[in-house]
Amino acid sequence: MALTKKPVTGMKDILPAEMEIRDYCISIIKKTYAEFGFLSIETPCVENLENLTSKSGGDNEKLIFKILKRGEKLQSALAQTARDAAGQEGAISDLPLSDGGLRYDLTVPLVRYFSAHENELPMPFKALQMGNVWRADRPQKGRYRQFMQCDIDIIGEATNLAEIELILATTTTLGRLGFKGFQIRINDRQILKAMAAACGFPAERCDEVFIILDKMDKIGRDGVLRELEEAGFAKESAQRYVALFDGLDEVCRGTEPGSEEHSAKALDYLEKELAGVIGEDVLPGLREIFQSVNAAKSADFVLVFDPTIVRGMSYYTGTIFEIAMPELGISCGGGGRYDGMVGRFTGKDVPACGFSIGFERIILILLEQNYVIPGQPAKTAYLIEKNMPSEKLSGIIRQAQQAREAGEQVLLVRMNKNKKFQKEQLSAQGYEKFEEFYAQ
Amino acid sequence: MALTKKPVTGMKDILPAEMEIRDYCISIIKKTYAEFGFLSIETPCVENLENLTSKSGGDNEKLIFKILKRGEKLQSALAQTARDAAGQEGAISDLPLSDGGLRYDLTVPLVRYFSAHENELPMPFKALQMGNVWRADRPQKGRYRQFMQCDIDIIGEATNLAEIELILATTTTLGRLGFKGFQIRINDRQILKAMAAACGFPAERCDEVFIILDKMDKIGRDGVLRELEEAGFAKESAQRYVALFDGLDEVCRGTEPGSEEHSAKALDYLEKELAGVIGEDVLPGLREIFQSVNAAKSADFVLVFDPTIVRGMSYYTGTIFEIAMPELGISCGGGGRYDGMVGRFTGKDVPACGFSIGFERIILILLEQNYVIPGQPAKTAYLIEKNMPSEKLSGIIRQAQQAREAGEQVLLVRMNKNKKFQKEQLSAQGYEKFEEFYAQ
Repeated sequence: MALTKKPVTGMKDILPAEMEIRDYCISIIKKTYAEFGFLSIETPCVENLENLTSKSGGDNEKLIFKILKRGEKLQSALAQTARDAAGQEGAISDLPLSDGGLRYDLTVPLVRYFSAHENELPMPFKALQMGNVWRADRPQKGRYRQFMQCDIDIIGEATNLAEIELILATTTTLGRLGFKGFQIRINDRQILKAMAAACGFPAERCDEVFIILDKMDKIGRDGVLRELEEAGFAKESAQRYVALFDGLDEVCRGTEPGSEEHSAKALDYLEKELAGVIGEDVLPGLREIFQSVNAAKSADFVLVFDPTIVRGMSYYTGTIFEIAMPELGISCGGGGRYDGMVGRFTGKDVPACGFSIGFERIILILLEQNYVIPGQPAKTAYLIEKNMPSEKLSGIIRQAQQAREAGEQVLLVRMNKNKKFQKEQLSAQGYEKFEEFYAQ
Repeated sequence: MALTKKPVTGMKDILPAEMEIRDYCISIIKKTYAEFGFLSIETPCVENLENLTSKSGGDNEKLIFKILKRGEKLQSALAQTARDAAGQEGAISDLPLSDGGLRYDLTVPLVRYFSAHENELPMPFKALQMGNVWRADRPQKGRYRQFMQCDIDIIGEATNLAEIELILATTTTLGRLGFKGFQIRINDRQILKAMAAACGFPAERCDEVFIILDKMDKIGRDGVLRELEEAGFAKESAQRYVALFDGLDEVCRGTEPGSEEHSAKALDYLEKELAGVIGEDVLPGLREIFQSVNAAKSADFVLVFDPTIVRGMSYYTGTIFEIAMPELGISCGGGGRYDGMVGRFTGKDVPACGFSIGFERIILILLEQNYVIPGQPAKTAYLIEKNMPSEKLSGIIRQAQQAREAGEQVLLVRMNKNKKFQKEQLSAQGYEKFEEFYAQ
């Protein structure tokens, strides 16, 4: 019987050249985060469906790969769907058929993990997770239905020490992977809320305002103004909102966008404009993050205050941040503070803050740059003629083993008839040295 | 809403202490196999259901976690199951509902991968896979429904160079993880078949004979004799079969079981007894494996010929091997030659041979031994008093960053009121040095 050669729709096989870079990045990431005291953990790829559909996952909840129940449970579920189908018109619900699904992110499982093992974990708990997640997105170039996420989270640290550590750990890692001249863009949900409140938007419709704001880099300020009005917000609020951003430009004029000075002026301006509508700690707290990160950073990047950053997930409660790479117009990772989420599992509020590297995008960039992994061992191929006598063969294998113990990479292969072609192929695989062994 | 804290049935959360050992083992395994020229690859965790149920997976095919179809495909499948349910008594088939499932091993996906990418891969192709697999087994102690497998395979190498390399790579890795005094037990399916043929068992019922032989260490030779007769085999065949094993004991008497000498005598004996019923290359080929492995091995282990090893999977065609650890009465991994399997995808026969380390068992042993990971960096905790002035905080963070760049592991934590207790807890997490920073 001929079988299906292709991987399942939307998922990919990883070829050796990419895998070498992935393995290398994983090792650097794990090593670097360990230096910051992050502890590596893992949760099952299958998660309780109830947890996955608890409204913490936003649109991802629509993209879950569900696992079919088994045995008697499945039979009774099938009987139920059959009864439902008989009694009604329209779509048949698949809900009875599944109670587990593949995780679509690492945040929901982390919060469940923390709530299950709280007593066995240090506090604050600094976690590193590298693992696959699955989303049944429409397949498109460079976007797959299985992909790796790389998250660090600090649970139980209410102060901005969490943000400072997350930003330094993430940027140090990116620096060690050879990335330069990138930006970490930071904002705070409390600033977003205060700006909306200062303009008279109703608090309960803030999320709608933010969704429109999030498009500013695409539709411009006029577009934001228009869409706010179209959404039925007061014209005056919309105008004041856009005027706030215009004012921001005004005070920052003359400073380089993205520079430290630019960020400092913007923070000063908002502190003045939002006085009375924003918590007293928010802007000084953000300034402290700037001060510490800039004093300690080892990678080549700029921390930038960007009051237009929104980030999609509704669970964020405080700071939010994104990685912007000059190589790509898009975000290469991000995160933020989500102080309310742990409480949904444990019933008691525990602060939490996380930062995720867009692992697949990082890999894509490195592959496009033909990244050369530093410190690779010398690669030698031993070409062994066929029908090598046993005694001689064991001598060759012993020699190879000794070279490996000395740190060399040695490939043993049977010599082909077309030795020249074989060597060319081996060269293409990175073998620089060849030794030939003949039977006689 | 309170959510479910426990992981899904039969799967486990991995706590930091175990994860540290797992990460370390993965790094040693990847590094060592790379020295042997194995290339790391990855396939999606979800595999075509058709491939998973192609009779290459033995009993594992009954344990598949199936993924529910989505959208319109799901609706039409649900309608079909509803029609089936209406028209019949008894169990409703779930077959229409799913076309993908979680992989239950790494061999089926490897063969699919090779057949899909043959033109992009070197030949012979030496692959390393480390990845999770899923089996809906009845949960029991130490056995989980998600677990990691660690396989190396050589596709396209017909000679026993494949077996020699697989055994050396696997044992070198185990040696570097601190394992000593273990055994690699080896046999060949062709020997098993020749022994059965020599005793007059019908060729088409060989697998039944092997299943009974596989129990010899539990039921003894009398048990094997009895079960063979109960299964309806000729009494004479059964008696000759057991007599072959008795004869083996006879010639090996005086040599240490498991010693090189013991294996050599057993091979000589079978070469004599099976002359004419076994391929001429089989026993010399096995002797060559012994000679090369023993000449080159760097780990502390013995290669043992064991004609009672069967291994469950029916796809094996030649050599079969198992890792036996003194710490456990059971196998800690194994593998063998499966020359026929690639042809089922590609239509042309390609030789293949693989060896798998029982990763989860290895981890279990290391955890039970309280394994200490060598070469870990020094671990220092900085205790920072609350309300540290910004300026001073940024200096502390800078100091931490410099220590990390120098290879140290530094944890920054807010100082608790009960500093003594906090330090005790940090000591338990492996922090040996403490620095205290006060606001004034």
